[in-house]
Amino acid sequence: MDGLEILDRAERLGRHSDSSEHYTRTFLTPAHRAAAAQLADWMREAGMAVRTDAVGNVIGRYEGASEGARTLVMGSHFDSVRNGGKYDGVLGILVPIACVHELNSRGERLEVAIEVVGFSDEEGARFSTSFLSSRALVGRFDSSVVGNQDADGVTLARAMRDAGLDPDEIRSAALDPATLAGFVELHIEQGPVLLDAGEALGVVTAIASGIRYLVRVKGEAGHAGTVPMARRRDALAAAAEMVLAVEKQCAAVDSAVGTVGILKVKDGTGNVIPGEVEFTVDIRAPDDARRHEAEDAVVKQLERVAKRRGVDMEVVRGPHDVAGVPCAPWLQERLAESISRCVGHEAPRLPSGAGHDAMMLANVTDVAMMFVRCGAGGVSHNPAETVTSEDAGLAAAALLDFLRNFEPRA
Amino acid sequence: MDGLEILDRAERLGRHSDSSEHYTRTFLTPAHRAAAAQLADWMREAGMAVRTDAVGNVIGRYEGASEGARTLVMGSHFDSVRNGGKYDGVLGILVPIACVHELNSRGERLEVAIEVVGFSDEEGARFSTSFLSSRALVGRFDSSVVGNQDADGVTLARAMRDAGLDPDEIRSAALDPATLAGFVELHIEQGPVLLDAGEALGVVTAIASGIRYLVRVKGEAGHAGTVPMARRRDALAAAAEMVLAVEKQCAAVDSAVGTVGILKVKDGTGNVIPGEVEFTVDIRAPDDARRHEAEDAVVKQLERVAKRRGVDMEVVRGPHDVAGVPCAPWLQERLAESISRCVGHEAPRLPSGAGHDAMMLANVTDVAMMFVRCGAGGVSHNPAETVTSEDAGLAAAALLDFLRNFEPRA
Repeated sequence: MDGLEILDRAERLGRHSDSSEHYTRTFLTPAHRAAAAQLADWMREAGMAVRTDAVGNVIGRYEGASEGARTLVMGSHFDSVRNGGKYDGVLGILVPIACVHELNSRGERLEVAIEVVGFSDEEGARFSTSFLSSRALVGRFDSSVVGNQDADGVTLARAMRDAGLDPDEIRSAALDPATLAGFVELHIEQGPVLLDAGEALGVVTAIASGIRYLVRVKGEAGHAGTVPMARRRDALAAAAEMVLAVEKQCAAVDSAVGTVGILKVKDGTGNVIPGEVEFTVDIRAPDDARRHEAEDAVVKQLERVAKRRGVDMEVVRGPHDVAGVPCAPWLQERLAESISRCVGHEAPRLPSGAGHDAMMLANVTDVAMMFVRCGAGGVSHNPAETVTSEDAGLAAAALLDFLRNFEPRA
Repeated sequence: MDGLEILDRAERLGRHSDSSEHYTRTFLTPAHRAAAAQLADWMREAGMAVRTDAVGNVIGRYEGASEGARTLVMGSHFDSVRNGGKYDGVLGILVPIACVHELNSRGERLEVAIEVVGFSDEEGARFSTSFLSSRALVGRFDSSVVGNQDADGVTLARAMRDAGLDPDEIRSAALDPATLAGFVELHIEQGPVLLDAGEALGVVTAIASGIRYLVRVKGEAGHAGTVPMARRRDALAAAAEMVLAVEKQCAAVDSAVGTVGILKVKDGTGNVIPGEVEFTVDIRAPDDARRHEAEDAVVKQLERVAKRRGVDMEVVRGPHDVAGVPCAPWLQERLAESISRCVGHEAPRLPSGAGHDAMMLANVTDVAMMFVRCGAGGVSHNPAETVTSEDAGLAAAALLDFLRNFEPRA
């Protein structure tokens, strides 16, 4: 299959953007609806029957060889972060469409039916939601979010109605677990591991367990020229030590990562000793045990720093607290075999540090993920994000191989 | 003399504020002009002839015993920072006025004439100026600042004309150095040194040498979940190490201080590894030698951190680069003797970490400063700033003693 054509479609889909200056596509904007229509066209062209569910997911169905077969679901999201990259999510819809197109053009039917889902909202940039679409698919939609407003004050409920979707019908989007044979998500890695290893494709072992903290440090503001060093309770110096503690403690736990992404000095002024600093801590690990190990070590160190420096500290947990999701070993095995056949050597395995729709699908069926190498140092959520046509072609070949050899588990 | 009355006047002057919610008085606002008029009234009431110079300084003159005597100048500023404290600057005008009032009420004339200056703009909060008034007094006014605009787009030149001041006449404000016997500034300490030592008053040895840097650190942004710790070039982690280096290197130099007051993570997001961070470094020491020692040590450490972590760093020096100003030893001695006579023991000596108008006056005459203990942990530039009436009374007594015993140097 032609990797160039897959990238060309990503390029064309990328033109459906909320902004003319950068690629941004958020839930139910005109650009988002145009992208959904484009995906539906490509699905139909590939031989699928297309429906749009109650939350705007675009679902293409390719029947199996026999009636009553279970359904293998594949897919990813077609919304984006602001000023994002064109492959994030989208690749995981376009590659399965290309596979079905290939099967259909050869008249091949599988033991299972296939559904390819274009998830309408995963990033949640417009309404501050999270996994909105996949939550709906697994019957875990949080109905309180329909009151969320976008930057213009439009509610999610209003935007849905304007798009012809009925917020009261969201429950109808839930898939019936008994009909499912599994869920496979193909996604760009969004990191540098495959790139560094010189590998095009990899099998995801688990989707990271993660927690987000907000830490507030209160010291004592003072004049930068008049308070002797020994007399200070500098909130930023304390926070700086804490940032380094996050780094050190997380690096000490195998495959754990810890990041302080936001740090704000309240009323920061060049000649004033900072009195208050607020920062976030994001900790992830392939499984809950390692995540808790890193988390406990970090919090203990932060407390030590606060005590030694005589600053007050408040640690607020959450709201982002996600348990780790292991990928089903049997599905990992099948994906690894298919990748091996395509690349000629054993498939690398790696955890996913980022969250994905597969996390939600794991609530109702076995899930697995295939990662595709990300160029430009592994950059994602950024216009610099790239995938090569060779890698896209390999991903399609491996996924097609997987489909042809797929046998649902009893 | 009555310390309570001095504090009462500070309180009354504090009501002339640009804001009804907090004490803020900036150059040539209606509140600032009302405060100037009030100061002029108190000066006249104390027996002084009052003039307002070309930059709005309010100057009260109390003639000496003989005509042609040189002039001892005293004073401080009556503008404030936003949401500041009522004693910062103001105390250094009110105490000298009280002293002259006392001399005048007893018919005492000194060997020197006295001028008390209410400096109209030291903080420079409205037009982003610095030592505007004292620069004018020493003939070093930077005429380029008349084009500076306030938050409403009003230029400094416009504000001066609206207040009846002629920007073209600023040169006329310059004092004639030949007529001067010295400059003495009384000021709250704005730090905790006297408070910690249990001392009401202190003699300033020198006004700090200071430099301000802007440091830009560029690492590599990335997804907080997907980039392994060992693979990161986290700009914030690097900056955190640098903040601690500033703290450590400055603490290692006697009486030096170093502060990172502003730190900004560019496009900070909870789940993104920071790619770029910018922060300020403020370094001060009692003299240039120690300041340069601290500065060199800090810059060397920052470079080491940047190199070790593989991040790019840009260090921009200035614009704030002020040489240290030693206070004249003979004036220090006279102030110390007067304080000793009032408090009954030897006067403590301490450097001033903050800048003061005296730094500018040092360009044309010998200067000295008396510090008054600051309550509330030494807090200043803050509504919590306090001075006790006892300390204000002691300061007035010591300054009066100094004046009565003052003999100009040949």
